[in-house]
Amino acid sequence: MNKTAQTVESAAIGGTFHIEDVYPLIDGGRFPVKRIVGERVDVWADIYRDGHDVMAAALIWRLEQEREWRRAPMSHHSNDRWGGSFVPDQPGRYVYAIEAWTDEFATWKHGFELKQKAGADLTLDAIEGAGMLTKAQSGGHAAAAVILKQCEDFLQTGDTAPLLTDELQDAMAESQLRPDLTRSQLFPFVADRPRARNGAWYEMVPRSQGQTPGQHGTFKDCIARLPDVAAMGFDVVYLTPIHPIGKTNRKGRNNAVTAVDDDPGSPYAIGAAEGGHDAVHPELGTLEDFREFVAACMSHDMEVALDFAIQCSPDHPWLTQHPQWFKQRPDGSMRYAENPPKKYEDIVNPDFMSEDAGALWNALRDVVLFWIDQGVKIFRVDNPHTKPFPFWEWLIHEIQLRHPDVIFLAEAFTRPKLMKGLAKLGFTQSYTYFTWRTQKWELEQYLNELTAYPEHDFYRPNFFVNTPDILPYHLQSGEPWMFKSRVALAATLSSAYGIYNGFELLEHDPIPGKEEYLDSEKYEIKVRDWDKPGNIKPYISELNRVRRENAALQQTSNLHFLPIEDGNVIGFVKESVNQTNSVVVVIALSRDPHEIWLPLNDVQIGIADDRRNVAAVENLMTGERYPVEWGGIHVRIDPMRDPAMLFRCLA
Amino acid sequence: MNKTAQTVESAAIGGTFHIEDVYPLIDGGRFPVKRIVGERVDVWADIYRDGHDVMAAALIWRLEQEREWRRAPMSHHSNDRWGGSFVPDQPGRYVYAIEAWTDEFATWKHGFELKQKAGADLTLDAIEGAGMLTKAQSGGHAAAAVILKQCEDFLQTGDTAPLLTDELQDAMAESQLRPDLTRSQLFPFVADRPRARNGAWYEMVPRSQGQTPGQHGTFKDCIARLPDVAAMGFDVVYLTPIHPIGKTNRKGRNNAVTAVDDDPGSPYAIGAAEGGHDAVHPELGTLEDFREFVAACMSHDMEVALDFAIQCSPDHPWLTQHPQWFKQRPDGSMRYAENPPKKYEDIVNPDFMSEDAGALWNALRDVVLFWIDQGVKIFRVDNPHTKPFPFWEWLIHEIQLRHPDVIFLAEAFTRPKLMKGLAKLGFTQSYTYFTWRTQKWELEQYLNELTAYPEHDFYRPNFFVNTPDILPYHLQSGEPWMFKSRVALAATLSSAYGIYNGFELLEHDPIPGKEEYLDSEKYEIKVRDWDKPGNIKPYISELNRVRRENAALQQTSNLHFLPIEDGNVIGFVKESVNQTNSVVVVIALSRDPHEIWLPLNDVQIGIADDRRNVAAVENLMTGERYPVEWGGIHVRIDPMRDPAMLFRCLA
Repeated sequence: MNKTAQTVESAAIGGTFHIEDVYPLIDGGRFPVKRIVGERVDVWADIYRDGHDVMAAALIWRLEQEREWRRAPMSHHSNDRWGGSFVPDQPGRYVYAIEAWTDEFATWKHGFELKQKAGADLTLDAIEGAGMLTKAQSGGHAAAAVILKQCEDFLQTGDTAPLLTDELQDAMAESQLRPDLTRSQLFPFVADRPRARNGAWYEMVPRSQGQTPGQHGTFKDCIARLPDVAAMGFDVVYLTPIHPIGKTNRKGRNNAVTAVDDDPGSPYAIGAAEGGHDAVHPELGTLEDFREFVAACMSHDMEVALDFAIQCSPDHPWLTQHPQWFKQRPDGSMRYAENPPKKYEDIVNPDFMSEDAGALWNALRDVVLFWIDQGVKIFRVDNPHTKPFPFWEWLIHEIQLRHPDVIFLAEAFTRPKLMKGLAKLGFTQSYTYFTWRTQKWELEQYLNELTAYPEHDFYRPNFFVNTPDILPYHLQSGEPWMFKSRVALAATLSSAYGIYNGFELLEHDPIPGKEEYLDSEKYEIKVRDWDKPGNIKPYISELNRVRRENAALQQTSNLHFLPIEDGNVIGFVKESVNQTNSVVVVIALSRDPHEIWLPLNDVQIGIADDRRNVAAVENLMTGERYPVEWGGIHVRIDPMRDPAMLFRCLA
Repeated sequence: MNKTAQTVESAAIGGTFHIEDVYPLIDGGRFPVKRIVGERVDVWADIYRDGHDVMAAALIWRLEQEREWRRAPMSHHSNDRWGGSFVPDQPGRYVYAIEAWTDEFATWKHGFELKQKAGADLTLDAIEGAGMLTKAQSGGHAAAAVILKQCEDFLQTGDTAPLLTDELQDAMAESQLRPDLTRSQLFPFVADRPRARNGAWYEMVPRSQGQTPGQHGTFKDCIARLPDVAAMGFDVVYLTPIHPIGKTNRKGRNNAVTAVDDDPGSPYAIGAAEGGHDAVHPELGTLEDFREFVAACMSHDMEVALDFAIQCSPDHPWLTQHPQWFKQRPDGSMRYAENPPKKYEDIVNPDFMSEDAGALWNALRDVVLFWIDQGVKIFRVDNPHTKPFPFWEWLIHEIQLRHPDVIFLAEAFTRPKLMKGLAKLGFTQSYTYFTWRTQKWELEQYLNELTAYPEHDFYRPNFFVNTPDILPYHLQSGEPWMFKSRVALAATLSSAYGIYNGFELLEHDPIPGKEEYLDSEKYEIKVRDWDKPGNIKPYISELNRVRRENAALQQTSNLHFLPIEDGNVIGFVKESVNQTNSVVVVIALSRDPHEIWLPLNDVQIGIADDRRNVAAVENLMTGERYPVEWGGIHVRIDPMRDPAMLFRCLA
């Protein structure tokens, strides 16, 4: 039995201080809060003790694997609420905690001064204060000299003034013992690199990147595609699985149960005689070719993301090397994957709870480490919601302790609590329901949920407009304005978004009645004209340019919807974390032209104390500027030309 | 250093299931939730695992000191939210937890039935199901016979129908191993007797209960007062400290620094040559007399509450027996209590953190146990907010493990977080700011805070209209309507409330400019005419009669304010926990007559599925009935006669 119990007994006796209602934390500190390296982490807590003594509090934090704590003071705001902050300076898994203690000298000084005003005899009180100085001098710390001098001044003259200077109080605060020290539990957080939150993803099927019909594409073909992808402004090139594909029970075109001779099979049926999860499909090229592809991406200022899909084809080497990792049926046959009444004869799932599970878990970790060694730092994880939570929590922790810059994207399309649970336990980013959210009210409701407390502290959305598995109904008519509207929504609502190749070509033929692609390249090799007339590549390029140039679009949580009366136009404002960049976005959700009033009277821009109403906006596509008059601007949107308008706010 | 830390490492690996957003709990389970014995405890949690297997969940609970868990099933409501309940059948400190596991047989059956519909070959599947039955039979449990029979039926006939009966599924659920069993942490709760939530308190100073001017009252005088107090309908008689009073630095009348010969001193200066916290003041009588007083209270269906005030007079025996429990000043003199610039020369506070603190803590516990042995089960704790939190958490736990029927009332008038903190750590009841809340908006705001989540799970208010220390400004004019309004508010808004003796006589002479009584009996002996003309004893008797007869007034949380337009009339409805009694209360907050419309259209009464709008109301003072017409009733209040109207709701 796994157990996360804490006995009541151990919790029963606390410290002098109560440290409560701590922010940020997730589920009482059970899971790590997510933050970005280099950005300030604000911490809040209610801290109080009995009585009237003066108290002090501090934040302490460190990388999980460090021994030394770093410290930052906390200060009292009101009603026993304390706050403090720090900036993690490198990516990693951290813990923080809060310490509170009694400031005995400040307590003494406060009482002394009150009694002095009341004209009391203070002889004994002065001696008691000096006694604290004497005790504090023995620490061997920097403040000792100040303390020694003030103490001597008092002892030589009998004048109490030297005991009451601000300088001495500061020195004592720095140096003295910290009586009644109470430390909160440790709260975990992770500081990720900015790519964890921000990035435009381009998903491609490597074998379909060639230009010769019927011929399997290669990594070299993929390299040849990169200028095109980079020109569109993408940050991440995500490849569907690149490993050898099983032959046993291989699926044919359109998911036919039986493959014919030249059918390439699904790349998700991983493993064959040529190797398993740490091998590359021979028709794609060699491992060296793959490394060249990684380097080529880097030269285009892009990163590679790999698909981490754990299932195995019946031909995967692990089935013979480690048969104990797989379940058998009563007749000794293989237990194929199934979701009754569906059966997936081309794959088997390893058993994460077998007697030999430890070796399996380690082998899967080593697969990830292997690809990290090849230069991959981003993994899109296939169907994590059908594998045990403890495995993911362990795996992500194991990897990120060694490689804190590694990003895991959870491809779970399932129930909301389960998707959030995966995000809590450590996935850096998560797929979302955006793919199916088309109405204004449902987009607003969903975004308000994702950007609110507590979701914004653990759930980082990545909005995909389509995937190899999902051709949503609203794209099936193939109308350019709809494709533009959807990619503009994804690219501006969420700082991480993605398209699956073919979207830019408006591919839209479904299996009739389903949200799936007809002739899906999951089961066949495709060759496309990447410059097909009518493509929206220039449009996507512009969106990604604006994203790169405007930090406001590089985060998601600081999103506020604007009250636009037209029910088919959505509008919102986003502000960069450092408050130096604000962008207003308006997007049409229907094909007819819209004349709207864009209210900007509640939009404030500027840093710290210099907040003011927005005075003008600049169209980020055309450069035109419009003054804000009567608290807003008039906007005309013609979706046939462009369903989206993006404005930078000017002071 | 005290530390409540939980290492990140221990929390890092959880179970198969996530068990989240558990209700009820306080601060993640750090403090006990408060409930009443015999009332249902509803528990809720989000529970989910990876994949699509059928799961089951249960509540487990036990007294802290028990070994065996009791169990209750949980059921799924929606969106991965599960609920269950149980009824604690005796007062005590409990823990509960949630367990979740995979129901493998139900999972198998679900898949089998889906595949059966799809017409698949099920030979192997049936054998797998039968295999589970074989494994489950070995448990030696009650359900084994059912399982055995169904299994044999299948094996003999090859017909799978016996594997798919509801009876078998239930038997398997009852019997089978519980794979993937995950247990939540343990969450503490306390089940108190009803008096913890409900009671009318009468505070009296025992030495002032005599009838001969200048003569010290005795326990026998107190016994003679009981018929009068009982006739007013009080449930608890609370005595200010009954211990020997110190002579050194004794305070004189009106808190004079020097006492004159016959000044009796403050009963809060505890301890003299005659004894300390476990002795009775000789002028009050003997310990035997006190026990007779306790018995006399019981015969009037009342309980005794004692004052637990920890400070000591300079003459307390502990100062010589245990000098190490007290702090000295640099010149060897005693450190008297002080709150700079004020000094309290007649008392010294023990040092809860001295080297010998363990012995002090035990001695204080033994004081409480001593009075429990004399029949006292309620302690009103003086100024708990100036003693360490860990002491109170330890003390209350120690006492309630032995005596789960003991009630502690925290007399802390201090900052809100601190008052709530004391309630969290274990105080059964708490004093409140009610004493100073007079305006409609502030009463509504404060009650809404106390009756909302999470406060209602740990903070049980006791509304005092006055105390020996507090004669609030609004009572200082001595107007009867105001005294009636205040006691009606206290008695109906809060199920626990109290008056300090003299209130019923409209005593109202302050120290000019202060909210304190002139000639306070804290420093002198008083003799009163308890039947003084103009007293409001009959009024209080009626209020307490209505409280006893209406369960709706015996709890506080189920309170809803009614929207009354008159800003000087407050109105609300309360419903009993079992929903069989509903009371509507209207109270005037100003002296002028009020004609108001009392809207009742949102008031529903009745149990479970039989909820309906209130049809009529009965005046609980006069017995008159009024039909509810047009969604409410007209009410005329003349505060000069009675500022409050109490109605029972009729179906």
